[in-house]
Parts: sequence; C-alpha cells; structure tokens
Amino acid sequence: MKLLESRVRAEGHALDERVLLVDSFLNHQVDPELMLEIGKEFARLFAEDGITRVVTVESSGIAPATMTALVMSLPLVIMKKYPQRRNQEGLLETEVYSFTKNQPYILTVKREFIRPGDRVLLIDDFLANGEAAFGAIRLIEAAGAAACGVGAVVCKSFQPGKGKLLEKGYRVEALADVAFMQKNTIRFVGETL
Amino acid sequence: MKLLESRVRAEGHALDERVLLVDSFLNHQVDPELMLEIGKEFARLFAEDGITRVVTVESSGIAPATMTALVMSLPLVIMKKYPQRRNQEGLLETEVYSFTKNQPYILTVKREFIRPGDRVLLIDDFLANGEAAFGAIRLIEAAGAAACGVGAVVCKSFQPGKGKLLEKGYRVEALADVAFMQKNTIRFVGETL
Repeated sequence: MKLLESRVRAEGHALDERVLLVDSFLNHQVDPELMLEIGKEFARLFAEDGITRVVTVESSGIAPATMTALVMSLPLVIMKKYPQRRNQEGLLETEVYSFTKNQPYILTVKREFIRPGDRVLLIDDFLANGEAAFGAIRLIEAAGAAACGVGAVVCKSFQPGKGKLLEKGYRVEALADVAFMQKNTIRFVGETL
Repeated sequence: MKLLESRVRAEGHALDERVLLVDSFLNHQVDPELMLEIGKEFARLFAEDGITRVVTVESSGIAPATMTALVMSLPLVIMKKYPQRRNQEGLLETEVYSFTKNQPYILTVKREFIRPGDRVLLIDDFLANGEAAFGAIRLIEAAGAAACGVGAVVCKSFQPGKGKLLEKGYRVEALADVAFMQKNTIRFVGETL
C-alpha cells in the first residue's frame, strides 16, 4: 500500500535495527482517514474469503481493525490482555510472551464472540515476532473457528513472525512490509535500490 | 441517542447496582456501524466548539473515538496506561486511580501530540467515577490545551464523575445516560416511568 509506505517513510523513525516508531499516525496519534484507507485495503484483499468476523488484540490494532470491520460490515472482536489467568467460565485464555515488555500476559476472549464455523480475519498494527498473532490464532481455533488470514498494517519481515505464520499455512497480508532497518534507514520488501 | 439507549436496553446487562455489561457491542465485541453513528452524534454535539483534536484513553474508548475523529476530520490521540512512571523526556504523566482494578496506573501522552492552544474533545466508552476523565484533563491542561468537552458513550450518572466534571465547569455529553440500575433493570436520565 503505497500511501502507507509513504507515511512510514516520511514520519516513521527507525530507532535502531528493530524498533520502528510510527506513533505520529498509527499507534499514539492516529490519522483516522488513513485508518479508513487501511480498512478499505484489507477489505479488498480479503473480499473473496467469506470472512464473518474481524478480530484484533488490544490496543494499538483497534483503530485499523474497527475501520476494516466497518468497511466489511462485520462485527469486530477485541481480544483482551490480563496479567494473570482469570479462569472464568466461558472465557478462552492463552499465554503470550511479549518481547516488548519481556514478560508474558494472558490473552482472552469470551467464547460467545467467536463461534464454531466463523471465518476470522485477524488485524493488528504490527507483525514482528508473531507471538500475539499465534496467541490470537490459538483462541480462534479453540473456539472452533478458522483463522483465514492475518492483516498487519506494518510487518517487520526481518523478524520471524511472518515466516512462521506462512510456514504453518496461514495467509499474511502486510500493507507496509519492512525488509530491513537501521538507524534512519527503512527499506521495504520488493523495493529496488 | 435513542439508537444507543435501545442497544443498551436490548443487549446490556446490569449485573448489579454498579456494573453494566455492554460487551456485545461496545467494548469486547464492537459494532462498527454503531461506532460510526456515535461518532456522527459527538461530531454534531461539538460542531460549534472549534475542536482541533480528539483524545481518548486506551483501550475501550478507541473505537468510538476513532470514528468521532474520522467524522470531524481531526487527529486522534490515544493516551497510554502504564503500571509505573516512565520519566521520559517529552512525556506528560499523571497518576489515575482505577476503581475497576482497585489500583493506580500512570496515564501518559507525548507532549508533541497535544499542543498549546489545542481545543480538545475527550471521548471515552464509560463515565463513572471520572478518575480517567480527570486524569486526561490534567494532561490536556498540562500541555497548554483546553479541555472543551467530555463525550461519554455511556454515563452512569448515579456515580460521581459526571457531577464532579460539571461542577468544575467542564461540558459533558453522554449518549446513553443511566440514572439508575439494579439487577436486570436499567433506567435512563429523563426517562418517564
């Protein structure tokens, strides 16, 4: 998605080889019109997949996921993070390791909001190590639904998440797919030098 | 907003005199078309106030706040919660007590995303005790901006937040304003018996 790559290039900051700051338009300050364009692009990419539900993981994926759900006329389900297991009836839970915070958290969803037979599109702001995506997929599959695709606004494909998802047979669409970063340099997948 | 009151009545569950569960359309499963209608209503209510920026507190306010910012063609700023102070340069911080979790958290925003002279509309999913709203207002005012209004999707006006905000001179608009709850009963402000 050229519009997004341009914004990443103009406003994103590669702090080092791993940390990409896009907080002026994606996850702290948010450009809602860009979010709508992102939603339209995910809707276009997954138009033929019979998606019945959009899912995201709180909290930075909520804005693009809400727009995707709006354009697709589907409900959105926000998976919640807690520091400990809740052991509540009707709640699906899985442990996810956060490389950002260097500690695990418990990802949860109420079983009633993902139904057997649902075809789920997972939307998140970033795909890096894939821990959150695999956690969400475990919950989707535990609910008896199919994880039909992962839509990442920004993917850092030099980190292992995208590769591991593809290897397991999951479809991944990244709207800005970063191949390489170093301080003040960002190169996208498919970009010629 | 009649559409929202109808949804609260049809799908909301008053678990007791204080806890209102609206997680089938507002804060766990989310109806994006309802969020858009909510955004239109906040935009209408604050159309004459020269708002320059929409602010919310992560994470359940993000969906309605993104739609409000979209309809108003304004940037959204998501204030972030952390367990401890971060003491980073350029970061505004304030301690907020969470009655839901019975512990304080640190609410933060980058100073660059709220500028002196900004006229800020604060949008959140719930207004109850007002702790989060007052925390956000402290950060808005510390940034040199004006807190021009608080838009709550659901207000529990039998709890002190709304009254305290009005007393301090802040404008509050609640789209569904709950006057009274008990198990399986919800009564809105202005509703005749």
